[in-house]
Amino acid sequence: MTDNTTLHLPAIEPTADAALQARLQHKIDQKTKPQGALGQLERLALQIGLIQRSDSLRFEAPQMVVFAADHGIAAEGVSAFPQAVTLQMVGNMLAGGAAINVFARQHGFALQVVDAGVASDLTAHPQLLLRKIAPGTANICESPAMSMAQAVQTLHTGMAVAKDLPGNVVAFGEMGIANTSPAALLLARLAGLPLADVVGRGTGLDDGQLAHKQAVLTRALARHTGVHEPLAVLAALGGFEIAMMAGAMLQAASERRVVLVDGFIAGAASLVACTLLPVAKDYLVFCHRSAERGHHLLLAHLQATPLLDLDMRLGEGTGALLAWPLLQSASLFMAEMASFDSAGVSGKTET
Amino acid sequence: MTDNTTLHLPAIEPTADAALQARLQHKIDQKTKPQGALGQLERLALQIGLIQRSDSLRFEAPQMVVFAADHGIAAEGVSAFPQAVTLQMVGNMLAGGAAINVFARQHGFALQVVDAGVASDLTAHPQLLLRKIAPGTANICESPAMSMAQAVQTLHTGMAVAKDLPGNVVAFGEMGIANTSPAALLLARLAGLPLADVVGRGTGLDDGQLAHKQAVLTRALARHTGVHEPLAVLAALGGFEIAMMAGAMLQAASERRVVLVDGFIAGAASLVACTLLPVAKDYLVFCHRSAERGHHLLLAHLQATPLLDLDMRLGEGTGALLAWPLLQSASLFMAEMASFDSAGVSGKTET
Repeated sequence: MTDNTTLHLPAIEPTADAALQARLQHKIDQKTKPQGALGQLERLALQIGLIQRSDSLRFEAPQMVVFAADHGIAAEGVSAFPQAVTLQMVGNMLAGGAAINVFARQHGFALQVVDAGVASDLTAHPQLLLRKIAPGTANICESPAMSMAQAVQTLHTGMAVAKDLPGNVVAFGEMGIANTSPAALLLARLAGLPLADVVGRGTGLDDGQLAHKQAVLTRALARHTGVHEPLAVLAALGGFEIAMMAGAMLQAASERRVVLVDGFIAGAASLVACTLLPVAKDYLVFCHRSAERGHHLLLAHLQATPLLDLDMRLGEGTGALLAWPLLQSASLFMAEMASFDSAGVSGKTET
Repeated sequence: MTDNTTLHLPAIEPTADAALQARLQHKIDQKTKPQGALGQLERLALQIGLIQRSDSLRFEAPQMVVFAADHGIAAEGVSAFPQAVTLQMVGNMLAGGAAINVFARQHGFALQVVDAGVASDLTAHPQLLLRKIAPGTANICESPAMSMAQAVQTLHTGMAVAKDLPGNVVAFGEMGIANTSPAALLLARLAGLPLADVVGRGTGLDDGQLAHKQAVLTRALARHTGVHEPLAVLAALGGFEIAMMAGAMLQAASERRVVLVDGFIAGAASLVACTLLPVAKDYLVFCHRSAERGHHLLLAHLQATPLLDLDMRLGEGTGALLAWPLLQSASLFMAEMASFDSAGVSGKTET
C-alpha cells in the first residue's frame, strides 16, 4: 500500500564517470572518421554509454507507454477538437490505428496505453492499464487541477507503471485533448517564461481561437498566483497524464533506463521531473523539437538539443519513436565500425 | 558504345500531377491526427507519392552507391588527411568497417563502391565497380580538373551505373580526400556565392589550415574566371566522384526512383544535376544538413529543407541512410494509420 500523503521520490544516480567517459570518447575517436564527424550521434553514444555504465551499448525490449487523460480546462474552448476525442483516440490506439501504433510496430516497441484520468470509463484491454486518478482534472481557471494528494498519487502511480516495465529503454507519449494548456502553464510557471511565448495553436487553432486560449490561460495563471513550490505547481496547473509521465520518467531514470522524451507535453513532464530531481536529465534523450510554440524555449531552458526537428506537433510519443533509429545507429557505430588501427587507415596529417 | 563527345542527358518527367496531389493530400488529411501534424513527414509522403505516381508508397531493394575519387588539389595541402586515405577508406568499405557499412546493414541497403577516379589501382571485389576515368583529377589551381570529354564521360558513366541498379530508391555517397574543395568551388560558381561563405573545415582543419585552404581556393577560382557554362564549370572545378554522382542522380530521376541526397559533397553533385536539368529536383530527398560551412547555403539555393540536422560532417552517404527510416515512416503512416471515419474519431469542432 503506497502512502500518498508524502511524496517519495526514487534515488537517481548521476551518470558522470570521468574514467568511463574518457574510455568512451577514446573509442569514438578511434573509429575511422574525422573526430567529431558523427556529431550528435557521438554525443548520444556518450550519453547512453554513461547511462548503461558500459562502452558496449545495448538495448533490450523497448517500451512505449502512452498516458491518456482529460482536462477540465477543455470546457473553456481551448482546443480545436472536442474532449470526446481523448477517449476515441485511446480506442484508436488499442485498435492499432493511431500514428503511434504505426511507428511502434515499425521500430519494435511494445505499446501500452495508461488511463491516467480519461473523463469516461474505459473497458479492459490487454494493452490498457487502468490507473485513473479521476475522470479528468478540475478546470484550472476555477481551482487547482488536482489536489496535492492526487498530485502525489499520480507521481507514485507513474513510478509504479515504469517499475513494472521490462527492458532498458522507455519512450513516453500522451493523449489528452487540451493538454497543451496545462503544459504551457507549467512551462510558464516552472521556467519563468512569459505566457505569451509558450501558448501555441495545439491541434490547429486559428488566430481568434489562439487569442481566446491566451486569454483563458492568462486567467488560469492569475488564479494561481503565488504558487511556486514544484509539487504545488503540478497540482495547480498540471494534468494527470503529465504528472504520471513525470513520475514514470523519474522511476525509469532511477533504474538507469534510457528515457526517450517526445515533444511539448512530454517536455512539460520532463520539466516537472527535472524540477523535482534535476539529476534525472542525465537519462533523458530529447528526441524532437515540436512545432508547438514554446517548445524550443522549453528545450533551451533544459539546455537540451533535440535529435529531430521535423515541424511535427502530433504528440502520442511519435517524435520519440521517429528518433529511435538514431539511437540504434549510435549503438551500432560503436560496436561495428573499424578503428584506424584495425582498418589500416592513416590518421590526420601531422602539422 | 557511348559517344563521349556530346553530352546526352536522360529525359526527366516533372512529378507534378494536380489530381494525384489532391488525392494524396486528402488521404493524408483523413488520417487520425490534426491536419499537418506530421510536418515534414507529410510533405515527404506527398513527394514520394508523386514520384511513384501512386498513393500507395512502396520501396524496393534500396541501393547505396559510394563514388570514390582523388583530387589533384590535395597536393596544395587543403585536407587534414593524406590522399592515401581515399584508397584506404575504399578498402575499409569493402571490408565492411566504415560508418556507411554499419548504416547500410542497419537499414538493409545493398552497398556498392565505384572507383570513379582513385589515384591508385584497385583490385577486383564483388562490391566494387571499376569505372576509373583517370587516377585523380588535375590540380584545379593549375588547369581544369578534367577535360570536357572526361566530364561528359564521367556523367555518362554515372548514368550507366544508376541504370544498372535494381530497386526504386537509391542513395549516393562519396569518398575522396580534399573533395570539399571542388564542392565549394562548384557551389561558389554555380550558385554565385562568395567563396568565403562556402569554404569550410572539411575533415577538421584548424584556423591556420582553413585560411590556407581559403587562399588556395581563391587562387583556383581565379584560374577559371569566365567559365560559367555548367558543363565547363564541372570540368574546370569538379571531381570525378561528384560528376559521376550527378550523372547517376539524373539517370535515377529519369527512371522515377527516389534519390536520397547526403551532405555537402552530394549536395554539390545535386547542384550540378539540377543546373543541368532543374526538373531532377522533383526526385531528390535532401536527407541532412551537414555541419560543413556552406551546406546550409547550398540547401537554401536549391530551396531544399533537409530532414536531419545532426551536426554531422562525415560524408560517405551516412546522412542519407540515417534519414531513411523517416521515408519508411512516411510510407507506413500512409498505409496503416486509420482515418477519422474508419476509427470513429471526431474531427475538429465546427466554428
